[in-house]
Amino acid sequence: MSHHAKSKLHLSTATAKHQPKRVETRYLSVERVAEIIRKKGIANCLSGVAANIRQDFLRWHDFDKCARMASHSDVGVIELMPVADDKCYAFKYVNGHPSNHRYNLPTVMAFGVLADVETGTPDLVSELTITTAIRTAAMSAVAALALARNNCKTMALIGNGAQSEFQALAFHHLLGVEMFHLYDIDPAATDKLIANLDRMGLKTRRFDSTREAVKGCDIVTTVTADKTNATILTADMIEPGMHINGVGGDCPGKTELHADVLRQGPVFCEFEPQSRIEGDMQQMPADFPVTELWQVLAGQAPGRSSADQVTIFDSVGFALEDYSALRYMRDVAVELGMSETISLIPALPNPKNLFGFIPFDAPAKPAARRETVAA
Amino acid sequence: MSHHAKSKLHLSTATAKHQPKRVETRYLSVERVAEIIRKKGIANCLSGVAANIRQDFLRWHDFDKCARMASHSDVGVIELMPVADDKCYAFKYVNGHPSNHRYNLPTVMAFGVLADVETGTPDLVSELTITTAIRTAAMSAVAALALARNNCKTMALIGNGAQSEFQALAFHHLLGVEMFHLYDIDPAATDKLIANLDRMGLKTRRFDSTREAVKGCDIVTTVTADKTNATILTADMIEPGMHINGVGGDCPGKTELHADVLRQGPVFCEFEPQSRIEGDMQQMPADFPVTELWQVLAGQAPGRSSADQVTIFDSVGFALEDYSALRYMRDVAVELGMSETISLIPALPNPKNLFGFIPFDAPAKPAARRETVAA
Repeated sequence: MSHHAKSKLHLSTATAKHQPKRVETRYLSVERVAEIIRKKGIANCLSGVAANIRQDFLRWHDFDKCARMASHSDVGVIELMPVADDKCYAFKYVNGHPSNHRYNLPTVMAFGVLADVETGTPDLVSELTITTAIRTAAMSAVAALALARNNCKTMALIGNGAQSEFQALAFHHLLGVEMFHLYDIDPAATDKLIANLDRMGLKTRRFDSTREAVKGCDIVTTVTADKTNATILTADMIEPGMHINGVGGDCPGKTELHADVLRQGPVFCEFEPQSRIEGDMQQMPADFPVTELWQVLAGQAPGRSSADQVTIFDSVGFALEDYSALRYMRDVAVELGMSETISLIPALPNPKNLFGFIPFDAPAKPAARRETVAA
Repeated sequence: MSHHAKSKLHLSTATAKHQPKRVETRYLSVERVAEIIRKKGIANCLSGVAANIRQDFLRWHDFDKCARMASHSDVGVIELMPVADDKCYAFKYVNGHPSNHRYNLPTVMAFGVLADVETGTPDLVSELTITTAIRTAAMSAVAALALARNNCKTMALIGNGAQSEFQALAFHHLLGVEMFHLYDIDPAATDKLIANLDRMGLKTRRFDSTREAVKGCDIVTTVTADKTNATILTADMIEPGMHINGVGGDCPGKTELHADVLRQGPVFCEFEPQSRIEGDMQQMPADFPVTELWQVLAGQAPGRSSADQVTIFDSVGFALEDYSALRYMRDVAVELGMSETISLIPALPNPKNLFGFIPFDAPAKPAARRETVAA
């Protein structure tokens, strides 16, 4: 990162000694984000986040990027996903615990932070469970707009869990998909998805297997939760011209696509160093050809070459998408006048006097004479 | 990480389907942490955190450890520092911006999180600016108790900024140091430190140079803020038997000790892979001998071999210390009945129905007929 924010520096220097900068961190709770989505409408949120993702992917080289830092246990994973440009640093905390339904907890829970690169101040702490669902779906739509055939009307949704409504709504609103073919090993998950999509006016059809569900579809989205090397899609299910939106295979040991599916057409990813470790492509040799999506968006690499070609987006979720989504939520929160804050950083009249922040009572020379505490 | 928390799993499974686990994240603001320190007393906080650090360092192999993830700009650094055992995952967000005084902001600001490894739920969000000052000083004291001569009475404090009071208080209360020799290039910083230590009943003497300040001291603590390869201590200032507590040299390009100082005696560090990159030892070749402190604490490596030997603790701050400090603050918050929470994670009656958390108004088949949004 280099920095271009000199003007801000000079401005503040003039008054710094007299006015300690107020250090408040904007706070977006889950309730507040749900309110944002209700007020703006889910379609606007999806398209707003998609627009931000596109914008940020088009300035790919402005960002310090790294693979996320994962801590694995035998029941799940906890990850930190940082990214930064020269003005803003973002990170997401996110877990993946496929057995969390036993506690009635979401499989994936997340929160995130935006911070000021110039000073290191955390400016925003926000929920990211709901927001991640929106950004993941928006990312899928951005990729499909670049990679799928025109006029896609039918999408199979394999895996009908927490992420599935958002995928359906993104593909409906951003690509015009009209019919969703549903399958999940848990029929209750499909019941729930049908009820929610019906409420939103979307058309669905349920199937008894993945094979039947994907038949004839323009797009196949896999978004299953099992932390195993599963084979949700096999090569014989794939039809010419299909776009595969592989969302659920996103950490080591968690895949959805048979290796032969990845050999059916060009494979696209978000950030190659991370996707090689975490994506379905973890099954492939290190020289297996993949293209980073930003190159397609920027016109620097081809996407689909014909209507009959199969295209595969091997999505794992990248920190930059969270940055894009966080700045959308922050901007809307400002627009809607939401002003909750939390107090994580001490505001100090003299920043070298951190100790002065602690409100000690006037002491009666408390400990200077204690000579017996020694080692 | 492996997990031993099966009992908890079984307990919750029984009721999970009927009672969604309430997902609230305990929240400790800067004001609340300041209150904890006032109520418990700074000496108790320092010794409590020191005890936790010692306890956690003694089970070193229980933890998943990694070097922190740093994002550097030309004005500072922002870092994430995760660590986990099989029950608890912790991370700290922390910046280092030496020019922040221009904005009247602290050089170092931090907050942190404790999370449940079994489910990934974030259980605590806490300020860590004040807490980091306490844990850094407690860490220094834990190291000095293991490495310095017995009956240390005099310590030089070079660098009289935000961390200095905490260092003085830790060495006073945990090692019995009675006299502090002070020097800073900024006389106002020394004024502030003297006023604060006087208020706490500690004896100080100010000097006009580092050379004069360190003369005759048992311990020399360097805790300066400049992000440069500085030479605060040179070999000719070092006297036999001194313990050097090098705190300020803690990231690439930020050192305080001349390389020859590191050659005067055995060098100890927290977590070697991180310290080789960030510590004063970044100046030394890759095979320069260093000992991880936990080995000394566990009796697996020698510390000081004679009263005349020089010992050097090349401290950079390691994630495990933040874990130790966070659990101290959490435990005291529980003890004192502090119950503030923030709402970062949605509580869902059906965890697969994340979409159901959004309070949409009953829709009038809003968008199903829009066929013109297509790509």
